[in-house]
Amino acid sequence: MSPKITTELLKQLRQVMKNPRYVQEPVQAYIVPSGDAHQSEYIAPCDCRRAFISGFDGSAGTAIVTEQHAAMWTDGRYFLQAAHQMDSNWTLMKMGLKDTPTQEDWLVSVLPEGSKVGVDPFIIPADQWKRMSKALRSAGHDLVPVKENLINTIWTDCPQRPCKPLIMLDLSYTGVSWRDKIVALRSKMAERKVTWFVVTALDEVAWLFNLRGSDVEYNPVFFAYAVIGMNTIRLFIDGDRMMDPAVREHLQLDSTLEPEFKIQVMPYGSILSELQAVGAGLSPKEKVWLSDKASYALTEAIPKAYRYLTPYTPICIAKAVKNAAETEGMRRAHIKDAVALCELFSWLEKEVPKGTVTEIVAADKAEEFRSQQKDFVELSFATISSTGPNGAIIHYKPVPETNRTLSVNEIYLLDSGAQYKDGTTDVTRTMHFGTPSAYEKECFTYVLKGHIAVSAAIFPNGTKGHLLDSFARSALWDCGLDYLHGTGHGVGSFLNVHEGPCGISYKTFADEPLEAGMIVSDEPGYYEDGSFGIRIENVVLVIPAETKYNFKNRGSLTFEPLTLVPIQTKMIDVNLLTEKECNWVNEYHQRCREVVGAELERQGRHEALRWLLRETEPLARAQ
Amino acid sequence: MSPKITTELLKQLRQVMKNPRYVQEPVQAYIVPSGDAHQSEYIAPCDCRRAFISGFDGSAGTAIVTEQHAAMWTDGRYFLQAAHQMDSNWTLMKMGLKDTPTQEDWLVSVLPEGSKVGVDPFIIPADQWKRMSKALRSAGHDLVPVKENLINTIWTDCPQRPCKPLIMLDLSYTGVSWRDKIVALRSKMAERKVTWFVVTALDEVAWLFNLRGSDVEYNPVFFAYAVIGMNTIRLFIDGDRMMDPAVREHLQLDSTLEPEFKIQVMPYGSILSELQAVGAGLSPKEKVWLSDKASYALTEAIPKAYRYLTPYTPICIAKAVKNAAETEGMRRAHIKDAVALCELFSWLEKEVPKGTVTEIVAADKAEEFRSQQKDFVELSFATISSTGPNGAIIHYKPVPETNRTLSVNEIYLLDSGAQYKDGTTDVTRTMHFGTPSAYEKECFTYVLKGHIAVSAAIFPNGTKGHLLDSFARSALWDCGLDYLHGTGHGVGSFLNVHEGPCGISYKTFADEPLEAGMIVSDEPGYYEDGSFGIRIENVVLVIPAETKYNFKNRGSLTFEPLTLVPIQTKMIDVNLLTEKECNWVNEYHQRCREVVGAELERQGRHEALRWLLRETEPLARAQ
Repeated sequence: MSPKITTELLKQLRQVMKNPRYVQEPVQAYIVPSGDAHQSEYIAPCDCRRAFISGFDGSAGTAIVTEQHAAMWTDGRYFLQAAHQMDSNWTLMKMGLKDTPTQEDWLVSVLPEGSKVGVDPFIIPADQWKRMSKALRSAGHDLVPVKENLINTIWTDCPQRPCKPLIMLDLSYTGVSWRDKIVALRSKMAERKVTWFVVTALDEVAWLFNLRGSDVEYNPVFFAYAVIGMNTIRLFIDGDRMMDPAVREHLQLDSTLEPEFKIQVMPYGSILSELQAVGAGLSPKEKVWLSDKASYALTEAIPKAYRYLTPYTPICIAKAVKNAAETEGMRRAHIKDAVALCELFSWLEKEVPKGTVTEIVAADKAEEFRSQQKDFVELSFATISSTGPNGAIIHYKPVPETNRTLSVNEIYLLDSGAQYKDGTTDVTRTMHFGTPSAYEKECFTYVLKGHIAVSAAIFPNGTKGHLLDSFARSALWDCGLDYLHGTGHGVGSFLNVHEGPCGISYKTFADEPLEAGMIVSDEPGYYEDGSFGIRIENVVLVIPAETKYNFKNRGSLTFEPLTLVPIQTKMIDVNLLTEKECNWVNEYHQRCREVVGAELERQGRHEALRWLLRETEPLARAQ
Repeated sequence: MSPKITTELLKQLRQVMKNPRYVQEPVQAYIVPSGDAHQSEYIAPCDCRRAFISGFDGSAGTAIVTEQHAAMWTDGRYFLQAAHQMDSNWTLMKMGLKDTPTQEDWLVSVLPEGSKVGVDPFIIPADQWKRMSKALRSAGHDLVPVKENLINTIWTDCPQRPCKPLIMLDLSYTGVSWRDKIVALRSKMAERKVTWFVVTALDEVAWLFNLRGSDVEYNPVFFAYAVIGMNTIRLFIDGDRMMDPAVREHLQLDSTLEPEFKIQVMPYGSILSELQAVGAGLSPKEKVWLSDKASYALTEAIPKAYRYLTPYTPICIAKAVKNAAETEGMRRAHIKDAVALCELFSWLEKEVPKGTVTEIVAADKAEEFRSQQKDFVELSFATISSTGPNGAIIHYKPVPETNRTLSVNEIYLLDSGAQYKDGTTDVTRTMHFGTPSAYEKECFTYVLKGHIAVSAAIFPNGTKGHLLDSFARSALWDCGLDYLHGTGHGVGSFLNVHEGPCGISYKTFADEPLEAGMIVSDEPGYYEDGSFGIRIENVVLVIPAETKYNFKNRGSLTFEPLTLVPIQTKMIDVNLLTEKECNWVNEYHQRCREVVGAELERQGRHEALRWLLRETEPLARAQ
């Protein structure tokens, strides 16, 4: 990796920062955040403005350019990468280290008195704007919205915003029509006494209309906004996608519908002016519901007294609870995914000893096997295919410079997943193709005990996921070990592989209570720097639990694994398992045999079936 | 209980709400919070203003009186009691129920336009003021400070503020001199670049100066404030307590000290004017550190730009980590406390079958046995002595109307503790003096499993207590059971039985990380309304844990029980325990035998010793 040379770009940016064509008054600093206008986790190439101006293309980072300085804030995952990718024009601000100033403090320390700090109001979430604006104002500066994105003015070969065809999902996939989703949404709006709801997150627009897209890699979403009134539906979307007769049919654009279900299609770029018109026409009793992560630009379009902001929108919460059709789809997707992984592991077992399989080859092979499955669309995230010391890099992705060859002497960690039309998968397995050491087995077994402790946990209705996080760590803690990431995240249904509002983490205190139908990952791990990484991840469904008693009639919940891929028994030190844990493994493997075995048989994949049967032999504890 | 007749009092209050002698402008509503000027959990009789005006004397509740209405907000523990104690002038606002308005919403709904809402600025914490003031302002009203407390103007027989003699603690109890505590505090202040620290919590003043008092029942504190500068120490305290030569000697008031350790003694009532003088004389680089729970009056004395507010003060955090002298004192106190409880339980075992022991008799007997122990000062809270259905009332305290006779047919729950000069105790044991049912044993055993899960937990340095809460519930959850309170609270060293900044609760997210030397309670329970209550509580000390590995060199922690009172084995269903849990009970009982047995022997309490030996016979699991 050689750094991007940014001298000329920075010079151009500093010029437009003073150019009255773009700024009302010159700005002495310009902030380039990571995100897009929808606060997406994964962004399209046209939104990679921070990577364009700096060269640093990690998933998290904020650039700030002043007349004299250029600085980049990023976290511990990316210190090395950012240092490699940026030239000497840039100062790396290592977040999380004691002496690293916050963006606000740094700005205050370098800016001349009474400075203006510019930012694209479409990219910065309202809550961040508020915090930064307050800090700057108290030091005598001003945060100002710069309507035209200044990076775009100098990014001459900026890619077009993608505008790919839409996928329509019928009732057999979604279980609920978009009309019924609108009805349910309006009833939530009525409950809270709001009259408008603004849909800003891309996965929320997709979910609401039972549409999918491919504008962003890994996330089956498309660029759009929606504004839902009690009697109106406006969808802001570009391109000729709305000319597709199938889409028109799906959205009933040409039918004679009741007016409250008539969708008005408007250009993507007109959201601000339309929302401003809504804001201007509000009567005193009206309220407009927005996510508190919506952009400053859209939030400001509604006068303050009329805003109703919440951390989680009603769509986010409804989307998290999967209905029967979605759950069945997720089950099917996970069976197909398991077939692909049985094929892969059976293939790896043969090929690894030859010394020809690299991390990239293995990742490609996993994708190849997945793509043979019905309704496969794309991967759900960049495959983490890592062997030996690379496994200890939690967010590793193999690139030619780091690509390592799998061997019979090292642990291999594969964290991968796919988008199928019926569901989204995300699974991690840790394998050894030779003979693991006693220490490797010991660590693997602690991780497995943590995985089981969460998966088999029974807990009252209304429990938040963060209360389960310590269950995943207890076995590791007993021996002085731990892992420095959360235990689980929400998973979408043929949607984003990471979604709110639930999760399992020591850090997540704002999570919503778990309820039956929610789907999360269960993925404890253990990482030994320079040696190996271990993680065992299943996607699990929250289901009601039968219990002996029922305190205060609250009811109980537990998890059902949707992922059905064998956990390598060779890596387990059976003597460290309790009887209950041992039974859990055996029952899980029995289910893999029955369900995935049948599908392998049906697909005629006999070698993978033999592998599955061998890998799911019951464990026996010494008596 | 008959309600207090408040018609005349409310009339008087409404008059003073308009009387220019007390209010600059008439106030249309007056708020009477629960607390005192130090935000104490336990308050002195002179501070029971809300009880005086309403008749309701529960520990939590806020009264608001308007020209037309009188309303009382309290939580589920007190719905019944408040309804009984208040007359028809009052509306009970049941907090936690869906339809109950917040105080702010209610005020907005009943007040005429542009109203003034008054409150004593010394009683309301700054953070509460801020919230309420904002809500009222946005509805066109004003929250205004009323300097003279309006309840005091009509409370003709208001008791005097207590001003009892002080107790001096020497180094053998405190481990650190007050001078060294001042030095350590100033170094924390220098770290944060603050030049003044205002001590507002009573237990923090007591801890800092190694003094104790008895101005408030159960809490060995005295009314005082302190203001610590980098070169000055001001102690605000009333009465002739400072005339006591021993106190003068302890504080070195008459010695020729370095000026920075010279304590200026000032009247308790002069804190505001003195702090205002400090506020007025600040230079631009100075900052004043206050708790964010300090009163609005004191917080306002410091201009906003100079305030440094934190949820936990450096004294709160230092006080929580007990040094060797304090830990040894706590150990001694717990041994004496165990002696008293062995005497009590041995006595109860003989007396209960006679049918003459009521809850009050048992509580008094517990106090009698405790008072025979060396350095006994008083109880540390009102004894919860409850049998049968009364045990299910979590905050029960026996009174003549509810007093129940202990019998061989019901479970008895005793939650009690004492203040000794060397430490504070808090212990709960649940006993059956006849034959418990299989169901009672089953529930008791789940609670015990939860107690052990916390007590034996090993966790990394830096872990917050709330991450351990679910360990206490897991066995109950497995069977669909739970309890609706937290698992533990910090415990003072001859100080308040409840103290911050640590605890073990699903609710506590603002807790500070646990560290070696901290002391908390471990008290899971199970309550069956109308039948019985079970709780098993030990006070435990955070100690370093030896582990096989040491991830990132963080080190691990665990707990050591300080409480050494037998857990009734008759109540345990041994077959529900794992081998590890069974060993824990046997080792715990072995320690009770050795340590408490020796002390019983030394004190010649042979009958109690025989009881102890019998109650600590090892459990044996069926193989």
